[in-house]
Amino acid sequence: MEDCIFCKIIKGEIPCSKVYEDSNVLAFLDIGPVNHGHTLVIPKEHHKELKDIPDELLKNVIVAVKKISSAVKSGVSCDGISLNMSNGEEAGQVVPHAHVHIIPRVKGDGLKLWPQNTYEDGEMDKVCGKIVTFLNE
Amino acid sequence: MEDCIFCKIIKGEIPCSKVYEDSNVLAFLDIGPVNHGHTLVIPKEHHKELKDIPDELLKNVIVAVKKISSAVKSGVSCDGISLNMSNGEEAGQVVPHAHVHIIPRVKGDGLKLWPQNTYEDGEMDKVCGKIVTFLNE
Repeated sequence: MEDCIFCKIIKGEIPCSKVYEDSNVLAFLDIGPVNHGHTLVIPKEHHKELKDIPDELLKNVIVAVKKISSAVKSGVSCDGISLNMSNGEEAGQVVPHAHVHIIPRVKGDGLKLWPQNTYEDGEMDKVCGKIVTFLNE
Repeated sequence: MEDCIFCKIIKGEIPCSKVYEDSNVLAFLDIGPVNHGHTLVIPKEHHKELKDIPDELLKNVIVAVKKISSAVKSGVSCDGISLNMSNGEEAGQVVPHAHVHIIPRVKGDGLKLWPQNTYEDGEMDKVCGKIVTFLNE
């Protein structure tokens, strides 16, 4: 896609610290890392978000994410790995080209991923039912 | 696995608000949701984290995550979806049975996923090189 910064990185028009590349996937270091070694994995085909990625390509992406995650963990000697994928601007997606964050985690890095909330009595079943409706369509 | 709470949910020994089930995967509502509709997707086989899930099973998990994410988005009418997977205690993994969080996001929900940092000059290439070493093994 012409104006997509990640497509430009794939084409080599913008440089990156390349971690991994195969015919389907490119991985490179995030320039604004949570912790050093924070890596982005993207499909080479331009798709905006999870729902847009064809199943076969998605399978290639997740197997690459698994392989690269282990290398990141060894490469930066971290304690754990958080994966994150933001789908949609409201989910914090800044670049509209699907990407998975591989985030090296170290004990006590203080990264708080989310606050937890609760359901009122009976509310959980209602919400569950609404979601299931769309799986049975 | 005998003492695993998610294995008990799979066996029906602990109840859940089931969103989806097939031969490989179970999905149910998180009881401590970021936003209502927050869903966990787990492989039925007990594996601790991403690196432990066999590739073929992992492919089934991610295709299910895609399908369920769209249903969650429709079911709770949210604006976006964040996916997260914590691998290792230090990454915030509480239950040691691999699970993907599907988190409905709404505009202005204030969820901050992470702080960004920087690399000093030359540091990025060094870190990248270390990771690549482990991909070429």
